[in-house]
Amino acid sequence: MSKGEVVLLDCWISPFCMRVKIALEEKGVAYVSQAEDLFGGKSELLLTSNPHGKVPVLLYNGKPVSESTIIVSYIDETWTSSSPLLPACAYGRAQARFWADYIDKKVFDVGKAILLSKGEALEVAKKDFIEVIKTLEKALEDKDFFNGDTFGFVDIIAIAMTSWFPAFEKFGSFKLEDHCPKFSAWIKKSSQRESVAKVIPDADKVNEFMPMFRKLNGVED
Amino acid sequence: MSKGEVVLLDCWISPFCMRVKIALEEKGVAYVSQAEDLFGGKSELLLTSNPHGKVPVLLYNGKPVSESTIIVSYIDETWTSSSPLLPACAYGRAQARFWADYIDKKVFDVGKAILLSKGEALEVAKKDFIEVIKTLEKALEDKDFFNGDTFGFVDIIAIAMTSWFPAFEKFGSFKLEDHCPKFSAWIKKSSQRESVAKVIPDADKVNEFMPMFRKLNGVED
Repeated sequence: MSKGEVVLLDCWISPFCMRVKIALEEKGVAYVSQAEDLFGGKSELLLTSNPHGKVPVLLYNGKPVSESTIIVSYIDETWTSSSPLLPACAYGRAQARFWADYIDKKVFDVGKAILLSKGEALEVAKKDFIEVIKTLEKALEDKDFFNGDTFGFVDIIAIAMTSWFPAFEKFGSFKLEDHCPKFSAWIKKSSQRESVAKVIPDADKVNEFMPMFRKLNGVED
Repeated sequence: MSKGEVVLLDCWISPFCMRVKIALEEKGVAYVSQAEDLFGGKSELLLTSNPHGKVPVLLYNGKPVSESTIIVSYIDETWTSSSPLLPACAYGRAQARFWADYIDKKVFDVGKAILLSKGEALEVAKKDFIEVIKTLEKALEDKDFFNGDTFGFVDIIAIAMTSWFPAFEKFGSFKLEDHCPKFSAWIKKSSQRESVAKVIPDADKVNEFMPMFRKLNGVED
């Protein structure tokens, strides 16, 4: 690895990897994406870089950083000359970290439950999911973005997760827009950003992956 | 609440609250501890301050910050004139945040499993717990503290969790020191700090609470 090189141990379908790629695009940092075959065996570099053995891992000058939210924070603190992602004041940063943490703890798990459930459990999963997004919608208030006028830390953490929302809606037979119109408007607006449009895969491609995801989680179609 | 006042929505037995109190002691910040009755009903202030409705919540000038790891980070970024807790460089901060996050994701859950299990499940829980502490011991290497020579962010996040270790050892009939001598030495050294000694309750008092903890989690003695 040459000096100054930025390498991402990556997987195209992982919303957590998408966060890192959107942050790098926002900062204008060139990077090499090194695809990990999560189903056929992880690379030695991944296993030695992250005690959890999970993507994403960002290597800068050969030094690894793991956990997507921590990586986005690290990117913000390393490439400081453009596009600040976290707020300038300590209280704003604490609030941003709270909502990033809320998204980390809730969104993927409640969405995953929709993909893996049937019958009554599916109805509960849908209700839980909409409840979580309503809480985020409340945090968004009437602002354009989570931190106000500009796209930043929480927006990156959240928008990457929405890459799987078309699959949640398809499997759960619902439209998020009917329940959370403001959050849906935020998705549309954020998705038009160059950094986001470049990174988030096509909804059809994401949907095509879901039978494999169900199989990996022990659910037969 | 008067200007400049620091209030902690607190619970004496919560390791997460202990983290915040140790950080405030390290910084020499005077605060008011407002005890929450978690079993008899939460205060309106707690419910409106934190979407999770959980202690700790730190209020500074009436503005709430939730989630213990985020609060400790906020304390470090707010009272900057003494005892820096997070490392000065971005990479060091990312590493510290990784290990704080590792502790958050692992230690309480594996320890709780010891308290709530019996028979074979208890043996699995003990094995898991020791495995997690061994990973932390590896991260500690031969340093005095997680960040090197000085007690800091990861030490605070971790040492508060160790307040429940005597209970894990008692219920699991094992001695952590037999498996993790370096980590045990770190506990002893860190526990002698004034900030830690002042905050961590007596092991007997913690042990006395555990039948109640088991009952709250649906396990009958």
